[in-house]
Amino acid sequence: MNKSRTRGERLVVIGGDAAGMSAASQARRLKGPDELEIVAFERGHFTSYSACGIPYWVGGDVTDRDRLIARTPEEHRARDIDLRLRTEVIELDLDGQRVRARDVDSGAESWTSYDKLVIATGARPIRPDMPGADAPGVHGVQTLDDGQELLDSLARTRGRRAVVVGAGYIGVEMAEALINRGYEVTVVNRGSEPMSTLDPDMGRLVHEAMEGLGITMVNDAEVTGILTGDDGRVRAVATREREFPADVVVLGIGVRPETALARAAGLPLGTHGGLLTDRSMRVRGHENVWAGGDCVEVLDLVSGQERHIALGTHANKHGQVIGTNVGGGYATFPGVVGTAVSKVCDLEIARTGLREKDAHRVGLRFEAVTIESTSRAGYYPNASPMTVKMLAELRTGRLLGVQIVGREGAGKRVDIAAVALTAGMTAEQMTTLDLGYAPPFSPVWDPVLVAARKAAAKVRGSA
Amino acid sequence: MNKSRTRGERLVVIGGDAAGMSAASQARRLKGPDELEIVAFERGHFTSYSACGIPYWVGGDVTDRDRLIARTPEEHRARDIDLRLRTEVIELDLDGQRVRARDVDSGAESWTSYDKLVIATGARPIRPDMPGADAPGVHGVQTLDDGQELLDSLARTRGRRAVVVGAGYIGVEMAEALINRGYEVTVVNRGSEPMSTLDPDMGRLVHEAMEGLGITMVNDAEVTGILTGDDGRVRAVATREREFPADVVVLGIGVRPETALARAAGLPLGTHGGLLTDRSMRVRGHENVWAGGDCVEVLDLVSGQERHIALGTHANKHGQVIGTNVGGGYATFPGVVGTAVSKVCDLEIARTGLREKDAHRVGLRFEAVTIESTSRAGYYPNASPMTVKMLAELRTGRLLGVQIVGREGAGKRVDIAAVALTAGMTAEQMTTLDLGYAPPFSPVWDPVLVAARKAAAKVRGSA
Repeated sequence: MNKSRTRGERLVVIGGDAAGMSAASQARRLKGPDELEIVAFERGHFTSYSACGIPYWVGGDVTDRDRLIARTPEEHRARDIDLRLRTEVIELDLDGQRVRARDVDSGAESWTSYDKLVIATGARPIRPDMPGADAPGVHGVQTLDDGQELLDSLARTRGRRAVVVGAGYIGVEMAEALINRGYEVTVVNRGSEPMSTLDPDMGRLVHEAMEGLGITMVNDAEVTGILTGDDGRVRAVATREREFPADVVVLGIGVRPETALARAAGLPLGTHGGLLTDRSMRVRGHENVWAGGDCVEVLDLVSGQERHIALGTHANKHGQVIGTNVGGGYATFPGVVGTAVSKVCDLEIARTGLREKDAHRVGLRFEAVTIESTSRAGYYPNASPMTVKMLAELRTGRLLGVQIVGREGAGKRVDIAAVALTAGMTAEQMTTLDLGYAPPFSPVWDPVLVAARKAAAKVRGSA
Repeated sequence: MNKSRTRGERLVVIGGDAAGMSAASQARRLKGPDELEIVAFERGHFTSYSACGIPYWVGGDVTDRDRLIARTPEEHRARDIDLRLRTEVIELDLDGQRVRARDVDSGAESWTSYDKLVIATGARPIRPDMPGADAPGVHGVQTLDDGQELLDSLARTRGRRAVVVGAGYIGVEMAEALINRGYEVTVVNRGSEPMSTLDPDMGRLVHEAMEGLGITMVNDAEVTGILTGDDGRVRAVATREREFPADVVVLGIGVRPETALARAAGLPLGTHGGLLTDRSMRVRGHENVWAGGDCVEVLDLVSGQERHIALGTHANKHGQVIGTNVGGGYATFPGVVGTAVSKVCDLEIARTGLREKDAHRVGLRFEAVTIESTSRAGYYPNASPMTVKMLAELRTGRLLGVQIVGREGAGKRVDIAAVALTAGMTAEQMTTLDLGYAPPFSPVWDPVLVAARKAAAKVRGSA
């Protein structure tokens, strides 16, 4: 470590996961320690880990927690990043250009000044506001520490009944994880179908597949209480209609941007509670403050409005952009089209762009089509069914969104639509896309092309 | 059948596979038999079959030949298409608007007049011009009839030594098919590496994988003769250096457009010997003649020049476009970007756009990068290595081409690049593409994004 540096600039990073440490690492690549001192604060024990991998660690597909860690604290320190673990930033003083941090274990507090600041405080899981929500046996799965606590809790519990509250990505992935560990799994879902990031007609397919896997799916069910036993540990999840006995409860009801610090400091927040940045990931109106990852809102290129999306791939891109700009280079993050892919056992679920209700909300009228096809040529072994739904704008025919549910080969097909959305293609233009074709990979008309043909025809028919 | 129709127009289709019968079917969808009589001539026994599926039928993955047939002659006839099997068109009289056809079995000839003509004569395999090239035991695999002959030949032969001449798609797929049937397979290849549709550095990866599968790969080897035994049947393939004993020989040295008829009639042919059409698939300069499928040249949207590509997915699209136009609608085929995907056992091989030599040939200067990544998050089970090569134009950074070699999940990733090429994206634009990410589907930076980042940086560095 270079202790006797002449005073260059100091970069302070709040949050030691994907966005924050990508930013720190990229800045370090561009500027050496004499030019830029980097101090990073992380509340937990870990850095640069894959939160998205936690369900697969809990489920046993990933056996070693440390494999989820892309870069350890020691590796960051070896690159001249002054990383302070178990240290929580509790105040931002923007005028004074300093942050106040507290050692989580000792309680000791101190101020650190900065020239440039990166806020990467992530998101926190939504916890139902009711008694029992913090009881032993009730777990979020947002951080690696959360995952470790859940695994410890599972190890301590003899019962095999798990209730997952929420049926979004985290909910369905945790349902898979717990089924894989041999639990009886009930998913309690407020919505009419699981995966509310899909339209309900596509969510229905996920519902059916989950039940086929032995998962009990309870829709239209609002959790009214989490009940504990005499030992204080969770014993059931209650809805208006009934109680679901539970030896362990996993909360997968979504996350919110962790922006309490930013809010207290008066930084600009959007309607979803996330920090608002410009294209360079600089916090709007604040020359020397950047923000990225799960604590920011991103521009949805299809709707033209901001959204909050907690996803590691965006966090990494944000960090890369921030680090480049902090390091004196130039980079921008143009926005997202809302692509997401997931699986429950062998069922693959993907979406990009707008759902029907998103389009309605932003005043776009559209035609929607749904087609059935297969992952490979129908005559090729293991050709499996795939359902593709496509939305295209009235009159222009512009692609608005695609949802895919199927088996192997379904999920990543959504990338075709993600690129087409980014390029502003119409369904008609998509009908002649030159996609990879050979019998083991696709029918002669790729399912996405079949959907595009049907959508284009429907737009023409309604013109 | 409606025999007593008032005379509408008559459409004559030459060729009963993908392009021809797609055109006929689509025209029939738009115009009933009273408006449009459709007569289709097919030299062979089959219609609307997947020639691309033949290697998998020969290899045993597809057990029933009839599964390769999308629509039988009977099904076409039931839709009022007057299909004449085993009938070869031997002359086009463009001025007289008629074709002369010969019954292959009886030799009987007759003229049929047309108002509109579709030429879909396909391609024929290149046969080395040398003694023995037509000997028993030497097989092409272009038509379903060819495939049946090869299977019959394999059944008759006790020997287990197979030589495949050529190492393009057909060559490597047939090598896989014959390995799957338990043959000792030698592939004799004129080029420096197999898969000359890839750059040689990527072809090298295919070479290594094929040898790992037990296939003997002989590169830089020109076939000088096909040797026959006393029984007249093939016994070896000779190159300048040595002889390769063979109980069966499969020719996979490519195909040429089957345009002898068109050439004799004076229709416009391109430098690759294929028919030249406009965007509506109408033969240039001929108001009432369309052509599509393996007998035409297509515009390569990246190079701006015509190419010949024999691929079922293009043939189907051509047929759809032709049928729509013949039926009084409007459709165009804008061109291709040159996407192709294949596999040898579990090795997936994909390419789109220009190779290095293609770019040189058309005067484009570029940066080329190659990266190694994995199909899934590195910590997820069965993450397999993947190599991605990307070419981006100097100065503009425009994507020119992508080649991918890897295991499961590698091949169809090329679609990302195919859409980006179609949209004219730059490598820099691709770095922020919102591609589907979850640990079972992709590393947090998709391999295509990693390649784009490296290519964009290299273009900037050389600017």
